[in-house]
Amino acid sequence: MPPPLDRADPEGAIAAAARRCSNRHRWGADDVLGTLNFLDAAKRREGAALVRRGETFSLAQPFDAHGPQQGWRRRTNPVHTMLDTGLDAERGTQGFPHGFGGADDVVFMPLQASTQWDGLGHVFDHGTAYNGRRAGDVVTSEGDRVTGIETAAAHLAGRGVLLDVGRVLGDDGELPDGFAITAEHLGATAAAHGPTARVGRGDLVLVRTGRLTRARREGWGDYAGGDSPGLSFTTADWLHGTEIAGIATDTWGFEVRPNEFDHAFQPLHQVVIPHIGLYVGELWDLDALAADCAADGTYEFWLTAAPLPVTGAVGAPVAPVAVK
Amino acid sequence: MPPPLDRADPEGAIAAAARRCSNRHRWGADDVLGTLNFLDAAKRREGAALVRRGETFSLAQPFDAHGPQQGWRRRTNPVHTMLDTGLDAERGTQGFPHGFGGADDVVFMPLQASTQWDGLGHVFDHGTAYNGRRAGDVVTSEGDRVTGIETAAAHLAGRGVLLDVGRVLGDDGELPDGFAITAEHLGATAAAHGPTARVGRGDLVLVRTGRLTRARREGWGDYAGGDSPGLSFTTADWLHGTEIAGIATDTWGFEVRPNEFDHAFQPLHQVVIPHIGLYVGELWDLDALAADCAADGTYEFWLTAAPLPVTGAVGAPVAPVAVK
Amino acid sequence: MPPPLDRADPEGAIAAAARRCSNRHRWGADDVLGTLNFLDAAKRREGAALVRRGETFSLAQPFDAHGPQQGWRRRTNPVHTMLDTGLDAERGTQGFPHGFGGADDVVFMPLQASTQWDGLGHVFDHGTAYNGRRAGDVVTSEGDRVTGIETAAAHLAGRGVLLDVGRVLGDDGELPDGFAITAEHLGATAAAHGPTARVGRGDLVLVRTGRLTRARREGWGDYAGGDSPGLSFTTADWLHGTEIAGIATDTWGFEVRPNEFDHAFQPLHQVVIPHIGLYVGELWDLDALAADCAADGTYEFWLTAAPLPVTGAVGAPVAPVAVK
Amino acid sequence: MPPPLDRADPEGAIAAAARRCSNRHRWGADDVLGTLNFLDAAKRREGAALVRRGETFSLAQPFDAHGPQQGWRRRTNPVHTMLDTGLDAERGTQGFPHGFGGADDVVFMPLQASTQWDGLGHVFDHGTAYNGRRAGDVVTSEGDRVTGIETAAAHLAGRGVLLDVGRVLGDDGELPDGFAITAEHLGATAAAHGPTARVGRGDLVLVRTGRLTRARREGWGDYAGGDSPGLSFTTADWLHGTEIAGIATDTWGFEVRPNEFDHAFQPLHQVVIPHIGLYVGELWDLDALAADCAADGTYEFWLTAAPLPVTGAVGAPVAPVAVK
Repeated sequence: MPPPLDRADPEGAIAAAARRCSNRHRWGADDVLGTLNFLDAAKRREGAALVRRGETFSLAQPFDAHGPQQGWRRRTNPVHTMLDTGLDAERGTQGFPHGFGGADDVVFMPLQASTQWDGLGHVFDHGTAYNGRRAGDVVTSEGDRVTGIETAAAHLAGRGVLLDVGRVLGDDGELPDGFAITAEHLGATAAAHGPTARVGRGDLVLVRTGRLTRARREGWGDYAGGDSPGLSFTTADWLHGTEIAGIATDTWGFEVRPNEFDHAFQPLHQVVIPHIGLYVGELWDLDALAADCAADGTYEFWLTAAPLPVTGAVGAPVAPVAVK
Repeated sequence: MPPPLDRADPEGAIAAAARRCSNRHRWGADDVLGTLNFLDAAKRREGAALVRRGETFSLAQPFDAHGPQQGWRRRTNPVHTMLDTGLDAERGTQGFPHGFGGADDVVFMPLQASTQWDGLGHVFDHGTAYNGRRAGDVVTSEGDRVTGIETAAAHLAGRGVLLDVGRVLGDDGELPDGFAITAEHLGATAAAHGPTARVGRGDLVLVRTGRLTRARREGWGDYAGGDSPGLSFTTADWLHGTEIAGIATDTWGFEVRPNEFDHAFQPLHQVVIPHIGLYVGELWDLDALAADCAADGTYEFWLTAAPLPVTGAVGAPVAPVAVK
Repeated sequence: MPPPLDRADPEGAIAAAARRCSNRHRWGADDVLGTLNFLDAAKRREGAALVRRGETFSLAQPFDAHGPQQGWRRRTNPVHTMLDTGLDAERGTQGFPHGFGGADDVVFMPLQASTQWDGLGHVFDHGTAYNGRRAGDVVTSEGDRVTGIETAAAHLAGRGVLLDVGRVLGDDGELPDGFAITAEHLGATAAAHGPTARVGRGDLVLVRTGRLTRARREGWGDYAGGDSPGLSFTTADWLHGTEIAGIATDTWGFEVRPNEFDHAFQPLHQVVIPHIGLYVGELWDLDALAADCAADGTYEFWLTAAPLPVTGAVGAPVAPVAVK
Repeated sequence: MPPPLDRADPEGAIAAAARRCSNRHRWGADDVLGTLNFLDAAKRREGAALVRRGETFSLAQPFDAHGPQQGWRRRTNPVHTMLDTGLDAERGTQGFPHGFGGADDVVFMPLQASTQWDGLGHVFDHGTAYNGRRAGDVVTSEGDRVTGIETAAAHLAGRGVLLDVGRVLGDDGELPDGFAITAEHLGATAAAHGPTARVGRGDLVLVRTGRLTRARREGWGDYAGGDSPGLSFTTADWLHGTEIAGIATDTWGFEVRPNEFDHAFQPLHQVVIPHIGLYVGELWDLDALAADCAADGTYEFWLTAAPLPVTGAVGAPVAPVAVK
């Protein structure tokens, strides 16, 4: 049970949580995987056995120019442009023989523009990265040379569990902005869902708040960068103690906004990434999967979510697929 | 059995193959999935049952500036740059309170720069796209507005089969450039592999030529755009008749180069994409998986390969994961 | 004197203006320069002779992430990122000997994101480009293969004239949104400025509305894509008859918004680019120059405004410099 | 007269040259302009008076995918793609009324991909930038926050002088790779050109080696990043003593390659940018201008070369225009 929060002392609270919840050197000084170490072959066998109907759910939002980004910290939406099109092919100007025609395209995008995993080099605490490394020894202008997202590519497949907090505790399935999801809320949600929603070592936990559902209905507004429901700072102990391998939400920032301190910026990130070494997913689309789970009462599934292995990336787009 | 090729008449051969092998309107006039229609829930249950050890294999090449692209048709390698780094965080210039520091990044890349799926809007035959649509009605400067890669995102998970033609028929595991893999070669490879390598309806078939192995040893050279082993034009009938859902290779262009006509450009593409509606993957890294298959004699596995759903893309990067 | 506008018949008005104001084939069937043909060596000598004090004025807005773009038609603001920084150099991780350190950078930007010239391939009328060419024969996915902006690079240097309509006719130097600047307004402004503001053949005319001044004070809002003062559709005849080489404004779209028809999109563009072949500049920053002109009563100057010669571009960024 | 070079001691030679040639604090601790301080109003009046015929010369190379870059340090060639084309306009799919059609485009490019100015934040010496600032206090992931290229935009217009060393000292107008141009070579070239080629305070000096001429004839090869003729390390004193405002060459790196030390990287840069504060231009196309100068015997002209003011850039593309 974490101690009560002192709203006026974020730095102290962060330091205390970091001490309680650290996985530093748990897997040796050279470790680059953090909580992915919890996701082992046995867990994957358990996950694959959850495929009963063979139905798939894409958990990715569209990657396009009409996405949620508003330019915060130079995060634009993806810009997708064509190198060649069907119109060019029809016109016959492409220079290919015998009626061959082709289309090709490029994209420019911030790696955190849409559905993504944060890498372990994404957030630092007082100049220190995961496993106690100096931030500048890890992430330079060349990218993350130690814990780049490519190190995770083969690992993120296992048992997924949905905790649909929005549906259990919200009005009409949605939590309001500023709603801080505590360990108690997570427990109550799992209890309401039944035994398929138990959470344990090596699981990939998906927390639905309903924030994306609202953005779809009302427009993006400040969905990507503004107020939001999300995990309470106090869940650091739960995130550490459950020994889950990763967690993802349908919000831009995973943790509650505004946060629970008078003045702080993403304090839960500051504990979970550099100290717990936790893989955090953001901007996932959990709505279709959640509707199915509510319909069949089964909240566990086989989940594959390998990030695009952009060498040295501190986060990367992902097209997660759940199979029930 | 396809008729013998007339090297001097690619246009005639393409037209004949297109007639023999067409799936046009097989799934109705509005279909956007092509051969993904073969990949159903039963096939996914079959695939999930193949997870025996829980071991994963990433089949993606690195997405980075040192990749294989040489600028052909404006295809550069991905350029990954940082918006913020650990050095900035250490210096304390990021403007965050209480020791919070962050790193963020962006990427610019052709969607076919590295490991990818071709979408159904990638290649046209005489101005016609998959299912008989006009090329310019499908792919404009706005992208593929009908068969964009996002339509495939939830589908590409199922049973994978590796046909390691390089290992069975090559010298030291590698086929030479210009080696045209025929249906007979595929059959002989499957026979050599044994019963786990049988190929059927709805499967995702991976063909290893060893071309990437060679590029790793010798340098990229013209790996991305030049001569290569690959599928013979004559495999169009096999690709159609087996009713596979998709096929991917460790080469840049899937089919053999130089091709088997005096003068043609990617003639097999011209049949399989607009006429068969086949999903084709290129630039996959099959080496680690192939070594494991050779070691344990099991050539089938669970495969998830959801493309990044860039709206309207005619191809997209993918981080495929095989699980055995 | 142009006929009165029928608000309900934009298509008719455009067609009539196009007939009255066409330069089609004026310089031969192969011409790619349009009104730049008016800017000759004599005009450049006249322009250079206007350098009296040797003072320079940059007329470019900043090219950065905090610019005016709001994503209209995938027009983002420029995204500038670093390949190497001073922090990396200090850290000594760059791999250079003897204390050498370097910084390098990249930019992604729509070519019309900030201060720019429209090229002659930027706007079409009923599928027809400048000089009667088919739009699709000029601008394909390869870019403008006929009138690409690189054709203009060496030409845009000559006599500049400022018409500060905002200062002469506006309140506190600014015209309100929807203010349609007519030929009469331009004439009255020139008359108020005195003889240095005379406009003639081959001149580069800068029209200040004060719209940018307002955006600087109030925030961008819809500065790039929304309502604005600007040139009246009825100025087509003036723009044609004066035989100016180019015109630029401090607004995003050069012409008045909303325009003077019940339903039309940039109707003046539809006449001046494909029919007059006029070079149009947008998003220029005229404020410092205008203040100087007001102070010394001299509204003419030497102006160099070569667009960045991006091959095949239909518009390009420019860093214009006026010298008085 | 600089001392003779000790090939084995680049670090000592750089330090000694830096001491002899420093402009540190010459214009005060807050200066951001360096040698641009030499380019004053009187010099601009002198430059404008050189416009005699009114003829212009663009000194920019094309900015396109077929440029010289080979990927060195993630420097790709510019990638220019279309957002809309004439083909789309003809097809009538753009959604505009009354026959309006448009084309739009974007570019991704390293800022040093083609014709450019190095900014004062581009090179550091032992972690120190121009005027003695710490490199990391100047250039972070946010860009150059002190001496960003935008600070120079209004300044780079004045008297240009061409020193065609290739034509005077080379074979058929071209110097070979490794040819180190000394102050004596520059003096001899100016003497051969006659009085219009005198070089003095505030001038913008263009040095033609003929290297681009060769690349045009033979192909890019390693034009951008490899061996080249260029300025000798020993010209540091000349570059400092002449008090020129800027210098530009037709090579990728301004200084000779291989350089004159056993082991060093761009040692002349290490002196001229952080110590002299000199503006250095690279990849300029001087051939057409040089031909004209040879023809009329006049080697001075008006030169405008305002870099694109990308906020915080450490270098920027430029479309220089010379007028004679």
